[in-house]
Amino acid sequence: MRGKLLAVALWGAASSAAVAGPVESSLTASAAAAQQYAPLFKSEMELARSFVDQMIEAGVVVPVPKDPGGGYTHEQHKRNYKAIYEGGQLYRITGERKYADYVRDMLLAYAKLYPTLAEHPARKDSQSSGRIFWQVLNDAMWMVHAIQGYEAVRGSLSESDRNNIDDNLFRTAAAFLSTGSAETFSKIHNHATWATAGVGMTGYVLGDKELVDIALLGLDKSGQTGFLRQSELLFSPDGYYTEGPYYQRFALKPFVVFAGVIEKNDPARKIFEHRDGILLKALRTTIQLTYDGYFFPFNDAIKDKSLQTDELFHGVAVAYSKTRDPGLLSIAQWQGRTVLTDDGKLVADDLAAGKAKSFPFKSLLLSDGPEGDQGAVAILRQGDSTSGQALVAKNSSQGMGHGHFDKLSWQYYDNGNEIVSDYGAARFLNIEAKDGGRYLPENESWAKQSIAHNTLVVDEKSHFDGDEKLADTIAPRQLYFSDVEGAQISSAVIEGAYPGTSFTRTLALLDVDSLSEPVVIDVVRVRSDKANQYDLPLHYQGHIMRVGFETKSNITARPVLGTDNGYQHIWVDAVGKSQEQNGFVTTLLDDRFYTYRFVPQRGSETILAEIGANDPSFNLRREPIVIQRVNNAQNITFVSMLEAHGRYDGAAEQTVEGDSQIKSLGHESVNGADIVFVETLDGKKTAFAISYDSDPEKKHSVKVGGQMLNWTGFAARIDLPSGKAQQ
Amino acid sequence: MRGKLLAVALWGAASSAAVAGPVESSLTASAAAAQQYAPLFKSEMELARSFVDQMIEAGVVVPVPKDPGGGYTHEQHKRNYKAIYEGGQLYRITGERKYADYVRDMLLAYAKLYPTLAEHPARKDSQSSGRIFWQVLNDAMWMVHAIQGYEAVRGSLSESDRNNIDDNLFRTAAAFLSTGSAETFSKIHNHATWATAGVGMTGYVLGDKELVDIALLGLDKSGQTGFLRQSELLFSPDGYYTEGPYYQRFALKPFVVFAGVIEKNDPARKIFEHRDGILLKALRTTIQLTYDGYFFPFNDAIKDKSLQTDELFHGVAVAYSKTRDPGLLSIAQWQGRTVLTDDGKLVADDLAAGKAKSFPFKSLLLSDGPEGDQGAVAILRQGDSTSGQALVAKNSSQGMGHGHFDKLSWQYYDNGNEIVSDYGAARFLNIEAKDGGRYLPENESWAKQSIAHNTLVVDEKSHFDGDEKLADTIAPRQLYFSDVEGAQISSAVIEGAYPGTSFTRTLALLDVDSLSEPVVIDVVRVRSDKANQYDLPLHYQGHIMRVGFETKSNITARPVLGTDNGYQHIWVDAVGKSQEQNGFVTTLLDDRFYTYRFVPQRGSETILAEIGANDPSFNLRREPIVIQRVNNAQNITFVSMLEAHGRYDGAAEQTVEGDSQIKSLGHESVNGADIVFVETLDGKKTAFAISYDSDPEKKHSVKVGGQMLNWTGFAARIDLPSGKAQQ
Repeated sequence: MRGKLLAVALWGAASSAAVAGPVESSLTASAAAAQQYAPLFKSEMELARSFVDQMIEAGVVVPVPKDPGGGYTHEQHKRNYKAIYEGGQLYRITGERKYADYVRDMLLAYAKLYPTLAEHPARKDSQSSGRIFWQVLNDAMWMVHAIQGYEAVRGSLSESDRNNIDDNLFRTAAAFLSTGSAETFSKIHNHATWATAGVGMTGYVLGDKELVDIALLGLDKSGQTGFLRQSELLFSPDGYYTEGPYYQRFALKPFVVFAGVIEKNDPARKIFEHRDGILLKALRTTIQLTYDGYFFPFNDAIKDKSLQTDELFHGVAVAYSKTRDPGLLSIAQWQGRTVLTDDGKLVADDLAAGKAKSFPFKSLLLSDGPEGDQGAVAILRQGDSTSGQALVAKNSSQGMGHGHFDKLSWQYYDNGNEIVSDYGAARFLNIEAKDGGRYLPENESWAKQSIAHNTLVVDEKSHFDGDEKLADTIAPRQLYFSDVEGAQISSAVIEGAYPGTSFTRTLALLDVDSLSEPVVIDVVRVRSDKANQYDLPLHYQGHIMRVGFETKSNITARPVLGTDNGYQHIWVDAVGKSQEQNGFVTTLLDDRFYTYRFVPQRGSETILAEIGANDPSFNLRREPIVIQRVNNAQNITFVSMLEAHGRYDGAAEQTVEGDSQIKSLGHESVNGADIVFVETLDGKKTAFAISYDSDPEKKHSVKVGGQMLNWTGFAARIDLPSGKAQQ
Repeated sequence: MRGKLLAVALWGAASSAAVAGPVESSLTASAAAAQQYAPLFKSEMELARSFVDQMIEAGVVVPVPKDPGGGYTHEQHKRNYKAIYEGGQLYRITGERKYADYVRDMLLAYAKLYPTLAEHPARKDSQSSGRIFWQVLNDAMWMVHAIQGYEAVRGSLSESDRNNIDDNLFRTAAAFLSTGSAETFSKIHNHATWATAGVGMTGYVLGDKELVDIALLGLDKSGQTGFLRQSELLFSPDGYYTEGPYYQRFALKPFVVFAGVIEKNDPARKIFEHRDGILLKALRTTIQLTYDGYFFPFNDAIKDKSLQTDELFHGVAVAYSKTRDPGLLSIAQWQGRTVLTDDGKLVADDLAAGKAKSFPFKSLLLSDGPEGDQGAVAILRQGDSTSGQALVAKNSSQGMGHGHFDKLSWQYYDNGNEIVSDYGAARFLNIEAKDGGRYLPENESWAKQSIAHNTLVVDEKSHFDGDEKLADTIAPRQLYFSDVEGAQISSAVIEGAYPGTSFTRTLALLDVDSLSEPVVIDVVRVRSDKANQYDLPLHYQGHIMRVGFETKSNITARPVLGTDNGYQHIWVDAVGKSQEQNGFVTTLLDDRFYTYRFVPQRGSETILAEIGANDPSFNLRREPIVIQRVNNAQNITFVSMLEAHGRYDGAAEQTVEGDSQIKSLGHESVNGADIVFVETLDGKKTAFAISYDSDPEKKHSVKVGGQMLNWTGFAARIDLPSGKAQQ
């Protein structure tokens, strides 16, 4: 095969040398034309030219499939579909024949190869094999890109070439991806979205209504599966994709690209108005699910994914073209990229015309589930989306196979950093040395487990005992949400994560008098029909500056915390018992200090730990944890607080407020209400009261320490007079 | 005291309210004048105004000394001397009376406090106590700043205020810092430089020749101690300061600032020509000792120190004023800062006039020791100083009390990152929670020890058995240095770090045919009169991707490597034996891969480890190590190589060359020469030959594997024909 391809490459080189004169003048003409393009579009054309010209230089190289993700043939076929797509766009924009010729030669090579392929040699038993790639998903992605490149050049081809490519490549591949991969094609899942988009777009290009119909309505055309049904079931009414932001970003591209094609070919279908405009709503929601441009790493997520990704270049362009929302232009500006379509040209033109406005990042509640009743994600923001605070409560449903057992977990961002963190996926995408770039065994043994998240763990077992099928049937319930600045609140309950045990978590981003930054208050109320061991871990980024309580440290031999469900990956550094106000740990990250403080529980201990045990292949990042552990308790309420404070300036050698500014954190349960008291070093007192009563009009009064506290509704912040003894 | 100070503050507020009209118009006038200043100087004035105005607003607060570094009184007195200095400069530049009044009031408060002070309550036994601060060094820094502020306003004061401040504050403080702290004052050490600068500058301002003389020539005026002698003994002829770059930066400020004052008051002394212009040479050398603007962290060094530090703002301004070297302007540009002196104004003006040129960062050899015969630091660079390669060989002398037992250790930078790293100091500067911001116990138990560095360790003992006094008497000897691009080489030997054992290290930054980046070759030749255990550690930054050899992993209980000399801080993750070509570890840092490869020794084992054992206070950063260990060997040669390769692009999900591009690394010792062979995957072969013969003209020939290798001089790179079997 390689020998044959080399011949094609040489021929290509000779051919372009022979027509050097005309090609050059054509280049000159198009260079002049390029002057008319807005800077963003022009730089996009230059990027594409640079890439495709290099590919043309290297010749058509279509190797026989062999390697898994990250390996040579995998990466080469990825480069190829990118070159086919971009070469097609460049031909459409510039009319330069060399691009059409290159795309044609590439597709002819695939038309020759494709019919000879069977199951991929590097396929994994747990996933459907592709033909060109080790998993069928990549084949679908190949098709989504290649068919768009083909569409741009198809009219310029000879009839025989066209028939050859139509039949041997795209029809054969469409058959494989649809009827040939019926199980994947019929899923309600992002893999199926790529497959239906590829097949449907092929249908439009080949004029094959059958392919369009099965793509839109499923193999049996009943509408129970297929692209339309996916858009109804995969996104919640708020445009949240149940697998989480990382896959939402990934899934979005075939949704918006195929929708754009449907709109063009079949405008009467009003695809962008389908289900109350769900596709554009999903695009905006994807953008909201970020801090400093990076996605919240729910579930299986690679943490270096930001809005600066190909899927979102397409998404923003298509959405802007439909809505002309100037906030999207600022996203394109941040991305510094767009796409080589008419939509991308519009984005570049309007950006150059100064039409951009800030994207309105804000606090919001995103329901999960097709009907919006499968829990929710709550985002509480203060300050800007780049350096301000963002508290994220993940009260959403399991999210299928890529879901983690992390009900009611939370994350926190401040000062441009992830402070309270989520591990994301245990995977080094496309790095051959790490299991071929696939999900690592530690993704199951650590990343998915409950103890790997900022959630409650009962008796060292994961939620639903790690049963994904069961987990998909039971979602948390969002009890309350408030985005009122100064007392932003989310509260949710999960019943069924553990038999006989339910827990309710209330998180607040609370202004406290005399502190410059809001604090996080975290109240986890557990109710059980029996005594259990409870662990409440906090995964954080930063270096420990001070531990408030005495610890017994494992300094000469480091033991492992447990044997299963993720506990086997935890090294125990130290264990201590805290009392009164010494239950805190202060850390430093970059130039800001953070104190995690908690109300000590009777008989509790606090574990300072680090990930990395039972990891012989060094697959895990070594990250720290603090765990509040209570043995043999039945009903219990964990009250914790996270406080950002001070500044460390290494250059100027100045440190300000390196220690916590809090004098005390207290908690009382009165008549079913939880009251949290915060007192600052300078004597300012603030209470946070939770009635757990969803009636927004209902007034509540409790007497604590001889003082009446009054508030209305589910929860509230209450300023207390200074200088009086509280509790 | 506080009550009294509050009264001063209130008075200050009332006074400024009473004269609001005139003050305002004066502000307006100066605002107009400020328009004439170049942007950098203007922004510097605005920074100073913002700081000093806040300080004026807060009133004069001069607390009784109480806290150690990082504590309240420590930080307040630091703020005060900064305000005195900047307030004085602002008065000199703008003529605004409020600044002179504020500086006066502040100094009057100090004149009242100072005579009442005795030893500082937070003094540390091992260091000389100050009066205002816990160590006398900080008092000297206070004086260097305060006397400059005082000089600017002194002429505007009433005679009684002037006499009060002259006598009760500065004369008293100068007496304390000189005769009252004779031991510190008479040292050849940076603490003494600050003290002599403070006392000498006070002498010039008060017109007190005695103070000037003892500052320049020592308490006995013999010239055996004092500022001039310090400039002769503390810097090598190449301007290298024996304590290392971190303290070089720190020491530089009193040197250049006091020199500037000497030049102004006593130009006939030609201080900047003293010892062949050593002070300006030292400034340039300080800048050369950086990568991406950050100092090489030799010895006790805080790693977040860059050129963007107050000392260097002064240094660059003074040096530019003397030399008009346009390369210094680009450093000022990178700093984005300058100083409020005439020199700073010149820098800002010439920068605005577009006179800046790139600073010529380059490969160089910096001799150590007053006579240049106490070893050297070799810097090998390729590419730019921000993202290119820099290999640093620390073949310098011990460097006194802040020195580390790290003879012949090395560091490596690439792609904007530290790759082969040095721990620096175990210290959190000015963070109260960490032992008051002082050096931590782990600075002795870990950071100074040999195993904490990239150097040879014999029998688990540090160099000179950790004896600092002995270490100061024995320096390495630089054998060879070449800055020829493509084969940059440094070679040095240390005899006496271990009894009966010497070792020679040759490091090369070597171009290898078909690799895009140069590789590092590291040859450590050990000669001993008996059998020993040898450890060769590599401290690196990055995440392990692949380990070439089988390992036995400590995955369920993590043991400690040893009991003393730093070994007690090392957790052992895994141990393995390598053979033939499987002796390598591949890591990922940011978007680039690195493979550390070594020629396996007979009976050797390789230890994969991490710092953090015996660290109950979490004082150490958790960083990884690879250790090549050979037991019971006498003469031995370690041959290792570091190769940067490939690219990981998380956004585009592309990985290129994630695995090493090297097929084999080999080594032969022939007739006293060491020959290293490198073969790439595509069959390109390169040899690196070391004769250890310092005669640059001498021709060498050795026969290896039937092939003659010829080169001239100490060491050379030799291209070998491909496709022939080597060794």
